Amino acid sequence: MESDVFSNISPLDHRYLVSDPKLHAELSDYLSEAAFIRYELKVESALTRALSRRGICPPEVADEVETACRVISPEEVYAEEQKTRHNIRALVNCIQRRVSQAARPYVHFTATSVDIMDTATALRYRDFSKNVLLPEGFALLQTLIDLALREKATVQMGRTHGQHAVPITFGFAMAEYVARLGNRLAAIEQTAGNLRGKIAGAVGAYNAGTILFDDADAFEREVLAELGMLPSEYSTQIVMPEYVADFLHAAVSALGVLANLADDIRHLQRSEISEVAERFEQTQVGSSTMPHKRNPWNFEHVKSLWKVFMPRMMTVYMDQISEHQRDLTNSASGRFVPEVLAGLVLALRRLNTVMSRIVIDYERMAANVDATKNDVIAEPLYILLAASGHPDAHEAVRLLAMEARSQRVSIRQLIDRKPEYSEFLRRLTSAQRRILDSPETYIGRSVERTEEICRRWQRVIDEKRLAADRSATSRQEREDVTP
Amino acid sequence: MESDVFSNISPLDHRYLVSDPKLHAELSDYLSEAAFIRYELKVESALTRALSRRGICPPEVADEVETACRVISPEEVYAEEQKTRHNIRALVNCIQRRVSQAARPYVHFTATSVDIMDTATALRYRDFSKNVLLPEGFALLQTLIDLALREKATVQMGRTHGQHAVPITFGFAMAEYVARLGNRLAAIEQTAGNLRGKIAGAVGAYNAGTILFDDADAFEREVLAELGMLPSEYSTQIVMPEYVADFLHAAVSALGVLANLADDIRHLQRSEISEVAERFEQTQVGSSTMPHKRNPWNFEHVKSLWKVFMPRMMTVYMDQISEHQRDLTNSASGRFVPEVLAGLVLALRRLNTVMSRIVIDYERMAANVDATKNDVIAEPLYILLAASGHPDAHEAVRLLAMEARSQRVSIRQLIDRKPEYSEFLRRLTSAQRRILDSPETYIGRSVERTEEICRRWQRVIDEKRLAADRSATSRQEREDVTP
Amino acid sequence: MESDVFSNISPLDHRYLVSDPKLHAELSDYLSEAAFIRYELKVESALTRALSRRGICPPEVADEVETACRVISPEEVYAEEQKTRHNIRALVNCIQRRVSQAARPYVHFTATSVDIMDTATALRYRDFSKNVLLPEGFALLQTLIDLALREKATVQMGRTHGQHAVPITFGFAMAEYVARLGNRLAAIEQTAGNLRGKIAGAVGAYNAGTILFDDADAFEREVLAELGMLPSEYSTQIVMPEYVADFLHAAVSALGVLANLADDIRHLQRSEISEVAERFEQTQVGSSTMPHKRNPWNFEHVKSLWKVFMPRMMTVYMDQISEHQRDLTNSASGRFVPEVLAGLVLALRRLNTVMSRIVIDYERMAANVDATKNDVIAEPLYILLAASGHPDAHEAVRLLAMEARSQRVSIRQLIDRKPEYSEFLRRLTSAQRRILDSPETYIGRSVERTEEICRRWQRVIDEKRLAADRSATSRQEREDVTP
Amino acid sequence: MESDVFSNISPLDHRYLVSDPKLHAELSDYLSEAAFIRYELKVESALTRALSRRGICPPEVADEVETACRVISPEEVYAEEQKTRHNIRALVNCIQRRVSQAARPYVHFTATSVDIMDTATALRYRDFSKNVLLPEGFALLQTLIDLALREKATVQMGRTHGQHAVPITFGFAMAEYVARLGNRLAAIEQTAGNLRGKIAGAVGAYNAGTILFDDADAFEREVLAELGMLPSEYSTQIVMPEYVADFLHAAVSALGVLANLADDIRHLQRSEISEVAERFEQTQVGSSTMPHKRNPWNFEHVKSLWKVFMPRMMTVYMDQISEHQRDLTNSASGRFVPEVLAGLVLALRRLNTVMSRIVIDYERMAANVDATKNDVIAEPLYILLAASGHPDAHEAVRLLAMEARSQRVSIRQLIDRKPEYSEFLRRLTSAQRRILDSPETYIGRSVERTEEICRRWQRVIDEKRLAADRSATSRQEREDVTP
Repeated sequence: MESDVFSNISPLDHRYLVSDPKLHAELSDYLSEAAFIRYELKVESALTRALSRRGICPPEVADEVETACRVISPEEVYAEEQKTRHNIRALVNCIQRRVSQAARPYVHFTATSVDIMDTATALRYRDFSKNVLLPEGFALLQTLIDLALREKATVQMGRTHGQHAVPITFGFAMAEYVARLGNRLAAIEQTAGNLRGKIAGAVGAYNAGTILFDDADAFEREVLAELGMLPSEYSTQIVMPEYVADFLHAAVSALGVLANLADDIRHLQRSEISEVAERFEQTQVGSSTMPHKRNPWNFEHVKSLWKVFMPRMMTVYMDQISEHQRDLTNSASGRFVPEVLAGLVLALRRLNTVMSRIVIDYERMAANVDATKNDVIAEPLYILLAASGHPDAHEAVRLLAMEARSQRVSIRQLIDRKPEYSEFLRRLTSAQRRILDSPETYIGRSVERTEEICRRWQRVIDEKRLAADRSATSRQEREDVTP
Repeated sequence: MESDVFSNISPLDHRYLVSDPKLHAELSDYLSEAAFIRYELKVESALTRALSRRGICPPEVADEVETACRVISPEEVYAEEQKTRHNIRALVNCIQRRVSQAARPYVHFTATSVDIMDTATALRYRDFSKNVLLPEGFALLQTLIDLALREKATVQMGRTHGQHAVPITFGFAMAEYVARLGNRLAAIEQTAGNLRGKIAGAVGAYNAGTILFDDADAFEREVLAELGMLPSEYSTQIVMPEYVADFLHAAVSALGVLANLADDIRHLQRSEISEVAERFEQTQVGSSTMPHKRNPWNFEHVKSLWKVFMPRMMTVYMDQISEHQRDLTNSASGRFVPEVLAGLVLALRRLNTVMSRIVIDYERMAANVDATKNDVIAEPLYILLAASGHPDAHEAVRLLAMEARSQRVSIRQLIDRKPEYSEFLRRLTSAQRRILDSPETYIGRSVERTEEICRRWQRVIDEKRLAADRSATSRQEREDVTP
Repeated sequence: MESDVFSNISPLDHRYLVSDPKLHAELSDYLSEAAFIRYELKVESALTRALSRRGICPPEVADEVETACRVISPEEVYAEEQKTRHNIRALVNCIQRRVSQAARPYVHFTATSVDIMDTATALRYRDFSKNVLLPEGFALLQTLIDLALREKATVQMGRTHGQHAVPITFGFAMAEYVARLGNRLAAIEQTAGNLRGKIAGAVGAYNAGTILFDDADAFEREVLAELGMLPSEYSTQIVMPEYVADFLHAAVSALGVLANLADDIRHLQRSEISEVAERFEQTQVGSSTMPHKRNPWNFEHVKSLWKVFMPRMMTVYMDQISEHQRDLTNSASGRFVPEVLAGLVLALRRLNTVMSRIVIDYERMAANVDATKNDVIAEPLYILLAASGHPDAHEAVRLLAMEARSQRVSIRQLIDRKPEYSEFLRRLTSAQRRILDSPETYIGRSVERTEEICRRWQRVIDEKRLAADRSATSRQEREDVTP
Repeated sequence: MESDVFSNISPLDHRYLVSDPKLHAELSDYLSEAAFIRYELKVESALTRALSRRGICPPEVADEVETACRVISPEEVYAEEQKTRHNIRALVNCIQRRVSQAARPYVHFTATSVDIMDTATALRYRDFSKNVLLPEGFALLQTLIDLALREKATVQMGRTHGQHAVPITFGFAMAEYVARLGNRLAAIEQTAGNLRGKIAGAVGAYNAGTILFDDADAFEREVLAELGMLPSEYSTQIVMPEYVADFLHAAVSALGVLANLADDIRHLQRSEISEVAERFEQTQVGSSTMPHKRNPWNFEHVKSLWKVFMPRMMTVYMDQISEHQRDLTNSASGRFVPEVLAGLVLALRRLNTVMSRIVIDYERMAANVDATKNDVIAEPLYILLAASGHPDAHEAVRLLAMEARSQRVSIRQLIDRKPEYSEFLRRLTSAQRRILDSPETYIGRSVERTEEICRRWQRVIDEKRLAADRSATSRQEREDVTP
């Protein structure tokens, strides 16, 4: 069913995906209504297959249903729903119409609508995570690792409260996002892998199933095993909502990490700081009226997506509440959850694009360090004074800093002039003196920590690739032996 | 640009509007990307028109621009944006390409992108409110007024904490939503009418405008007057965000009223209460597995929409913050605001449909009153006792209620048996005795209040219709005299 | 009942108010439990007074109740509540215990608990707004007006996307917050003035009242008139929740304006920008380890308060929903609303303190303008070129900007070298040429707009003061004639 | 520092804890300002201890610091903060003042304020979870297990959409909350155990530490090991915010489970349903005006607490964002996090109290099943028809249900009258026929599932008790050998 993309209401369905049809297709494969119906059909098919394995119906019936489920279109289901006013009844009618009279009773047999819908939802979120979300996430992680390692020794001023503090390296600053994004991707992987299905019937007590089987819960496990899933520990009409809530928390908090990276970079792009820049195309326009402008609009965009999707977690939390064996007030709201996942992928993709071609102005970065390096020595000076036994080192240095400021000299110059510090200066090791003389070397373990963190997450990525290769190989091998 | 509707990501762009193409078209007219671009073109056209009225360019230039603005398509703008990477620059290029060399300089002249975008946004929200949102809202209000008046004397048990309290009428219960919805529609009307535009340039100080005009702020008023709007009291690059925040608060809190109505009705539909029901079609299916079920799914749907859209107000509040003369982090987020408006219309429309054909089970409603009417008299009894000078009436009745409960008699029966109450009973007026004898008549001013509230809001609706008629008539008259 | 302040759970009750006992007392007067009980007693007193005016009880009874209501302590009520497990029944018992046997029946007569609580809540929020919140708000507004006027001509670089755009003045930047804060204070005043009470009984239908009065709704108006209030247009057991929601929206969106101001200023304090600073005390410590640090911690604090209190609006929106004639799920949540009001006052007070002694580094502000003024002329140059008939002025200037950047000259220098611009330059007026030569004069209507906006809001403040003076005078006069 | 508890602003500090001083003390031990300072002192003490283990200072210095840290009061720190305007500098000054001149340099040595604060926060949340939150949680879990097992065979009507669906047992309904609460307690335990500290200095790069140690990150691990903690994988000035975000998500989603339980029970208390009730005290008042009322106010209270605290997760998500090596905008907001934890404990405690004495009306529960059991058979009938080869069983039963409704007979009676069903009925097994004859036996695996789920979580509780006993024993043993 065709429609004009520009008549769509959601920016996801016009502005943000019209420009990237490939990405749109990737997202649609899991997050659209067509995808939802396709996954529901997979569940219906698995159900009949499990019935046939139990001998309730012959395998041919399961084959018939599987074949039917492969070809049914959303248009067909929606046309039927006009009549039934019930989406799963419509789906079931569509399947039944395409199978033999003998097969019909085994379609949707003993299942309730939500068995199909909740299982399909869990399944498509899991597949989406594995096939789209995590690959996009690890692609950005790789970009950040490469950047962090490349710049591990590029000295940058550390900033707290927007004020120059003490130096780090730009690689170390990027390692923050290696660690935090890595941590969130692990959380997504873990919670997506823990999404659950159900075939427990109208109120979760396997009432209908028990008519056929003594062990209706074992049958539930069998149906879900066809799909590679586990059942919810408990079900009412619906799966326990906490599995999805945990997954969405992982997704939304991952978006928070991206928003922080975006904020960091766009502030580094401020005219007065100018340490980094987005690469601009020759034909690109920064402002419709100020032709000289080059705005950090991609980073602003990512921050803006966070503002759009983060509050949606409230909806997820509200959907934890469903009266008794279920009210339906989580139905429409549940249908909007895929938008959050789409938003996260958009943000990952956008950041990967701009971070992989971020331009660093090394001169400016060094100049910014240089501008306040005389202040910077306040901290090591206080540490060294304290270490040498000064009873009130912090206060002494605070007063030195104020004196230096009012006299417009550096703290370093000031202590050189003060005889009471000569003995102290004399006792310093050469490494310690170097810090006072060249505060830009006062970067702590920036380089080593960057290396450690990047190494750790590179190993995770490499193992993933290895596993993917192995799985591809073994799939190939299995296929090779197929007659 | 065509796409498969079922491949869309947002339920707004597949599930909830595919079934009602007419409503989809109404919403698209204001809330889609096509609409946004059409409104931006209106603003560009108004700008050149105002320039021509000032004599900066000849009227023919304004005509040329106006003609161009009427025909430019979203596809055209998006194709150009591929090159410029700037949506308004693309729009301007599209206009310039369609006008003469002489007209080109006057396109977008002195304006900054956001002048166009913020003004277009305000304008389309205002028109949307007037032409779609408020009519839908007043249609539901009329339905509720009619229902409240019709049932103004239908006695229903009042419920607090889910417990029977004292009686009201069903009409009075509906009058709650007449008052609250009316109040919110007034808030929407007021805040939509207060949406503002701007033609104040890149940082809001009329820098560019001042090159041409001494009174660039007067020029801003002239451009906006072409569109029937007022300027923001102050602008940075953007309009003060509080105008939109107030409008969205009105919309979101209106949705809260609808959610409350939906909750009320769906609880009245509980099997044990069963006072009202949605009318079911003959072919409609309640449950895929429980063929007897008739679920309050439309009311559940409305509640669910509230869960989707209410938290979006957080995004609006976050978008109040924009650094200095503007950061762009409100850009993507602002583009999702129309979804909230679409959601509100969906909820209004849905509720109107089901409320206009709500089925009341009068027997059941009366039976529910009957079931606890003996408890109900506790309140009037306490009032009457107190009025007759009993120093501790509340405690006395509380103990009577406990005694009645344990003896399984009614409070009424109990006091008849107690001689200490005989003198008290004797002194009651006949009206007062009627309340004790027929607690179902203890409905206070339910009928009168229902009438008053409905009368008040009917007057509002009638005046609106009158105004609409007058405006239609006078438009007709104006058109009639056109040669 | 005394407790250790440091054992309190809420930062409002230890950290943020322990340092300012006077402010704490001001807030407690309206927002504490003691205040709530005091206001409930006011409502009970008004109720009996209205009964006596109707002749239901003698005036002496109303006097007795009023006297009792003045002295009852929270401890007393809480002790009684241990027994009743019902807070208003406890309150009523406390009053009854302090009045004569004859007066007892007229305490709380015909009222339901929520009549008292909702009316008391509306009343204390209204008084709090008038006596604390708005005065704090207008004090900050006055500070901002003074600052804006003082700095109306201090040229500052305008910034969009964190990038230098075109110049404004610092006064104009501050005028943004004059306009936005003024607008929000007006919204607070309007919505606080529209808070409503109720004396409509257990389900809002005046059931109990109707036993005594034919016109129980008129009686409601009379009770509320004793307190200077109007009734809710409709009541269930509770007042229509939208009155409080509107008030809280005004408060929360006011906090958003403050957060934006805080963000603006703290970014201006960045080491690389350094245009403004908080005044530091001699003994104040910026960092426990970096003795040289001077952090914008007050502005960070205000932003942080916004993060605390803004999301609480979700609670208010959820409290719009109350089943049937009322469920009690808005009870605890309603009790936390005063925290939001306290938070807003804390933010206003804090901002007023730091804004009133903000230190401007004029040299730095000028230097920042100077740094990019050559870029700035891109905009006026494009306007002037377009005005002189250049058909593609924006593109021409965009290319000039890129050429200037690569040649490391200013755009101004570049066009001087290009013969094709000589004719164009020759035709400029002297005012126009001055902009190109001295881009720092390209500030549009910054000065005039600052004046206009400040004038407008100064008038509002002055009228308020006048009104307050007049009201103080007339109160004085009334008191003078009291024998 | 004493203050009147009723002058506090937060309901947590007056209403909700004044009535339970023991609970208040338990919460204060971890969540108050006094507790925060006590934990900060623990961290300072651990720091000096680790320095002494490295030989940087003699063990006597660490002893001195430890002794000082045990006695410092919040009043002392706050008095000092009046001067420093910096809370940790104040704390450090207080310690230094209480130790010898020789010990002073080793107080807070190389640490930055946030090292102390973030570590103290993680530590107190962890201890709070272990000592208060989880014990309260497991106490409720035990209550629910006991209730579920006791009522595992008590037949109750299952309800979906508020409509009677098919039967379950009340124990099975309670098993939902065993599973969901158990799942959330596991999540709390896991995330609380994963809270992290840091001793990584002002910008997280161990700058100060590196002056003293080559392996400053190893030193960090040593300090934290003194407290039984691990370091954040990466630190800026602050610990990675995702550890706390995960913990808070677990807490907030646990509250969601409690809110759902509260909603379920309060709806079961509706006058028309009346299957359960809160036990009322003899002196307790349900309504100030309706003496007969018995409201589910404790359950309403829990739902209301959820409305208060759930949206606070937004604040946590906003606090994920901190610019560069840290801005301070998470400071005030972080201080409000303990309120959420207090709210969760309040809800757990309240629910445990009322659930442990919930009153079940078995007659009513059975009567409610009885009322619609004739409808209930629609589902098993459809399953059995389908199993017997009926090609369109669902539609057939849907039409039977409509016919039964219009003829006012039961579906069971209807099929007995229809000859086309006689053959089908004859073929049923006796177990299957029993379901049609006694639909109240159609409870599926309600009993078995209840047992399984309760068994699983009882084992978790038992292991915990065992572990606690073992740990108490071994602590006892260790103490026994102490000379």
